Order: sequence, then structure tokens, then C-alpha cells
Amino acid sequence: MSERDLGDRFPAVGDGKELEPGDSFHKEEVQLALRNGGMPLEGLRYPITPTGMHFLLVHFDIPEVDAKGWRLKVGGLVSKPMSLTLDEIKARPAVTTVVTMECAGNGRALLSPRPISQPWLLEAIGTAEWTGTPLRGLLEEAGVSEEAIEIVFSGLDRGVQGGELHSYERSLSTADARREEVLLAYEMNGQPLQPQHGYPLRLIVPGWYGMASVKWLAGVEAVAEPFQGYQMSQTYRYSQEADDPGEPVTLIRVRALMIPPGVPDFATRTRLAEAGPVRLRGRAWAGRLAVSRVEVSVDGGSSWAEAEPGEEVSPYAWRGWSFDWQATPGRYTLCVRATDSEGNVQSVDQRWNYQGMGNNMAQRVDVVVE
Amino acid sequence: MSERDLGDRFPAVGDGKELEPGDSFHKEEVQLALRNGGMPLEGLRYPITPTGMHFLLVHFDIPEVDAKGWRLKVGGLVSKPMSLTLDEIKARPAVTTVVTMECAGNGRALLSPRPISQPWLLEAIGTAEWTGTPLRGLLEEAGVSEEAIEIVFSGLDRGVQGGELHSYERSLSTADARREEVLLAYEMNGQPLQPQHGYPLRLIVPGWYGMASVKWLAGVEAVAEPFQGYQMSQTYRYSQEADDPGEPVTLIRVRALMIPPGVPDFATRTRLAEAGPVRLRGRAWAGRLAVSRVEVSVDGGSSWAEAEPGEEVSPYAWRGWSFDWQATPGRYTLCVRATDSEGNVQSVDQRWNYQGMGNNMAQRVDVVVE
Repeated sequence: MSERDLGDRFPAVGDGKELEPGDSFHKEEVQLALRNGGMPLEGLRYPITPTGMHFLLVHFDIPEVDAKGWRLKVGGLVSKPMSLTLDEIKARPAVTTVVTMECAGNGRALLSPRPISQPWLLEAIGTAEWTGTPLRGLLEEAGVSEEAIEIVFSGLDRGVQGGELHSYERSLSTADARREEVLLAYEMNGQPLQPQHGYPLRLIVPGWYGMASVKWLAGVEAVAEPFQGYQMSQTYRYSQEADDPGEPVTLIRVRALMIPPGVPDFATRTRLAEAGPVRLRGRAWAGRLAVSRVEVSVDGGSSWAEAEPGEEVSPYAWRGWSFDWQATPGRYTLCVRATDSEGNVQSVDQRWNYQGMGNNMAQRVDVVVE
Repeated sequence: MSERDLGDRFPAVGDGKELEPGDSFHKEEVQLALRNGGMPLEGLRYPITPTGMHFLLVHFDIPEVDAKGWRLKVGGLVSKPMSLTLDEIKARPAVTTVVTMECAGNGRALLSPRPISQPWLLEAIGTAEWTGTPLRGLLEEAGVSEEAIEIVFSGLDRGVQGGELHSYERSLSTADARREEVLLAYEMNGQPLQPQHGYPLRLIVPGWYGMASVKWLAGVEAVAEPFQGYQMSQTYRYSQEADDPGEPVTLIRVRALMIPPGVPDFATRTRLAEAGPVRLRGRAWAGRLAVSRVEVSVDGGSSWAEAEPGEEVSPYAWRGWSFDWQATPGRYTLCVRATDSEGNVQSVDQRWNYQGMGNNMAQRVDVVVE
């Protein structure tokens, strides 16, 4: 089957509206949520997210890859095309980096009206130790032509999205691809990649939302024109309506999250806490930037107080924060927001866009104190 | 805070109806689906589910357990109460067993009307190699009194459910607890348990739905009366209405699932396959029983043909099956159903119950063949 428009055979979810005005989710959205697991927010207690708690977003199916037959093809506008085995990649210089990854759609299902797609609330995050070889060295060895302006990364995952049959492919500018932190990773948390995280090899682009870190990587190609594949031109865009091409989604926006205090109600996740001192804890991150400030509100965002900064793990990972709250009986809506080193601050209100991308509005946690 | 009725402060989801007549899911159900991840169905290709792909159901929060301070208390009607460190448990005789686990609520969200809880479709399954020490030996050493009729297992996870603040606790009859396959497990797939799977120790009750396999195990207590805790008396019941106590949910019912063939549409998961021979594959299981037959329908359940049985992994785990389909262009609804060694067969129609337990109706997969 070739690439072509399959929209008539794969109609959109529900009645085809791409926005949902209410709090009423389609079965297809639930089906995606069950496949694409988030990190339970109590997972914020770990500086490195335990394997299996890291969020996951798989557009199509997890491919079945036999590493013996697998090769990474490096081609296009290069002087020395290559076809590398996994062992050859592992024999190259190795680097381990701690990286916080977030899905660009995190916060989508908190928007009103709600764009119909993977319905993330706040849990599309995770931090891992990725081990691999810098992409830069490989590009140098391949000899990327001066005509090349982008590098296209092709995954083995394939399916239909927006009526188009395609493999998952994304590009980076040659400058971004040559940054020293960009890795071809074959280990996560000291173990070979799990199948769902891109086995045998994936790209890791620290500071960018997760869509840039192509999994099940099979091809690296230098090209002379901007790549216009579906996952670049049709989605991962900050747009205001269906026909607005908007701007591409790139780096992770500043965000802080808290570990919900006390214990949960099973169905609603509303919290029950005991009156007295409650230490609120969490983590904050800002893509390539630093987090300069974290603030907490215990009155739903009306007033804010400064939190204590905590441990830093790596330049591309979240850092801890804490705040001591003297809780007295009552109902509270706790909020947290962060500011990055360029002065960007999370808003309490939504910054709506048509695809529900990069929604970093401040977290709200309902707590009953007794 | 003591155990008591908190229903006024933790009202039910939505307007408080426990059943939802339509295809319209509440945000709270989506929130649960994002925390409690399922196994993507292509994961059926692995005889042992890769770590992180196994389904997960956590009623409250994942507890933070320091294994150094943790102890397993064995008490109640025993002649020799014990308090054991993790090292002492690991020093006991060790067994490794492959077990297929399924959530009792698997299939709940396919029911009509839909009970409001974790909205599983079909993915609340997984198979792992569990390593631990048989519970039986520990009970023998503790000397369970003849007065004892049940063993109560207490987890460290705690929260509000149905308006009651409680720790997660379940019981087994002394006869069930003494069965040789019941394990106190500290490893999953050759690694220490991940926090979300019960670190440092959990119960594994092969053949039972997952609620019996208490995670973050802290207490084992022999008692003379039937245990009436919330997780025994109020939920995990086959009932027909809110006030019907019904029957307790116990062993896993027979079920077969298939790996959806071809490639998916991102949003709907409808499949696209090429005309020609298509090998359908999947796995089937039946709790403590054997799977005696697997059948496939390519016409939505009107007619059935026998599938080939495949590899068996262990008496308590799923077995493979396959079926060769000559696919011609068109739209199809594929179904699969299994029969167990006592002659129970999955139905094509729902077997409705009020809490949405044990719904093993046959899987349906929509496929477009081109």
C-alpha cells in the first residue's frame, strides 16, 4: 500500500468534530489513554523515574524489531553513507545523560474546548538516564554536505493518522542535530531499551518535547529542503484553527508539578490530608532553560509564596522543590507554578491552541484537610 | 484519621450515577486510565510481557517504601508470630513461576450501561516471571491455629474508596492460602519489583484475578471469622444492583485475545491490512484451568473456525494460538473466543453485572483490507 489519503475509510472520532466542548470523553480517547500510560504524579518523588513509570506515547503500534537484522542507515546528502549494526553503534563513544521528557500534548485534556487526541491531563512526563552515542560524531563521520539544511529521522512505526498512511518521521535543522547533547540511545536506566521505548535504538533530543526523540530509529537522512512529512507539517503545531499552519512545537515550556499530598480518593483523586505541617514536594523543569523560581498557592491561585529549590539532577532534567504548609481543616485548591531563566512564568489560565500543544497552565490539586 | 464514612466529603464521580448509559466518559475515568496503564495488545506477541508493558491497577497511591525499615508481620491465630526482613524472606526457598494476571475489571468499559470505575477495554493483562518464596512454608512455620478460617493480607497503600478510609486488604481461605503456587514475590522478570508492582514484596495468587495479589505487603494475619473489609465485602462482587451483595470475584475466566493485524489508525485503532494471507496470532488463558479450544470469526461472530494451539508457557499462564486468514478487500470485524477445560466458552454478548467484573465477552477487531 502506498502513501495516500485514507480519510474516507478511517473517519475521525465521534461525529468528526475535532474539538469537544464538554467534559464528555469519547471511547477512542479512553482507548488511547489506556495504551499511552502516564507517570502517576507520586512518581515525582523519584529523581529518576522507575522503568515502567515513565510516560509513553506511541502513535501506531510498538514495532517488533529483531536487532540482528536491524541496521541504522545514514544517507542522503552525505559523502559517506553508512549502514550500522547495533554492535557498531555501541562500540562508538558512549555518553549517559539524565533527561526529563514531556509529551507536547501534556495538559491537552484540561483545555476547554478540548482538542480530540491523546487526552493527557498532567502525567505525560518522566526522567530517565539515557545512554548512547552522540549523533554529532556520526554526522561528522558521514560528512554532511553543506547543501543539507535538515536531518530527517525515520522510525519503524507505521500507520494511518489524519487519513495518511505513513511511517513516523521527524526532522531537525542541521544545527540542532549537531548539538552535543543529542544522542542515539540504546539504554534507558542502565538496561537495553524496552520495546515500547524504542528498542533497539532511539533518538534523544534533550530540551525538546518528546515528539522529536524518534523511537525505533532506522534512518538518518540529510536533506536540502524542509521536511514536510505528516508529523512535521500537520501535527505538533501551535495553531488557532484547522487551516492555520501555525508555528512548530519545539522546546519544552516551563512547568512545575507537585506530589499530591495526603491520600487519594480512588475515583476522583481528591486528596485527604491531616491538619498540621504538610511538606509539599515536587519537581520543575524548563526544557533547555533553568528554573529560576517555584511558587505555591494554597488558595487556588489568588496568592503565591516562594518554594525552596531542591536538588538539580542535570541541565536537561527537572529539579526538586519543597514548601512547608501549615494545613488547617477545610477544603483547599493547591497550585504550583514555575518561572524559567528567561522570565517565562506558567499562567493559571489556559493558553488555548487548536491541537492542544504545550499547555503548561498551573497544576491544581483539591485537598480536604481534617 | 480513623476509618469512617467520608462519603459527604468525597462525592462520587459526575452526578453520582454509578452507571453511565452512553459512550460518554467522565474526566475522572480518563484520569484513572492514564494512571492505570494497560498492555498495548501488540504486547501479546511476547510470551513474557516486557517490564513496563504489564497492566497496572493501583487503587490509591504507589507507597514510598524504605526496604530497610520494612518488615513483614505474620500474626493473628498463629503459634509463632514473626516479623521478617526482606533479606530473611529472600533467604527462604525460592520459586520462579510464570503467571498471567488480569484485572477483574477488564472489559468493564465495553458493558452497556457502563459501571463507573477504571474504564478497562481489553488491555488489563500481562504475564510475568515472579520469583519469591511459597507462602505455605511460612504459614507452616508460623503454625496457623485450627480455629483460623482465613488469612488476611494487608498492603501499605491507603486511601478513600466508597467513602471509607482504609488500607488495601484482602483475604483468602486457609485452604487457598496454603496452595503450593501462592508466592510471596520480591522479583518480577528477574529484577527487584518496581515500586508500582509492589516493592519490596507482594502476594502472587496464580489463577485469580489481580485483586487477590496484594502489593506492598506488610501483614499476614490468621483470623477466625470471614474478613469483611471494603475490598472484600463492597467491591470485587458479581452483583446485579447497588444493594445486591452478589458473589465474590475469584478465579480468572477463560479469554482469548488477538494481536490486532496490519497497522492502526492512530485515533480509532481501526486496522489497515493488505489483501492476501494474514496470520492472526494471539494468546488465551483460563485461570487455573486449561484452554481446550480457540476459535476465530472473520464475520463478526456469525461463523467460527478452529485456531491452531501454540506454545504453553506454564500451567498458570496464557498459551499462544494462530489462525491463517485469506484476506480479500473489504471491511471485517474479526472475533476470537476460547473454551476452557470445563467447557466454559466466551460469549459474543455481554454478561452484564453492576460492578463490571469478569466481562470476558469475545474481542472484536475492525479491519479494513485493501
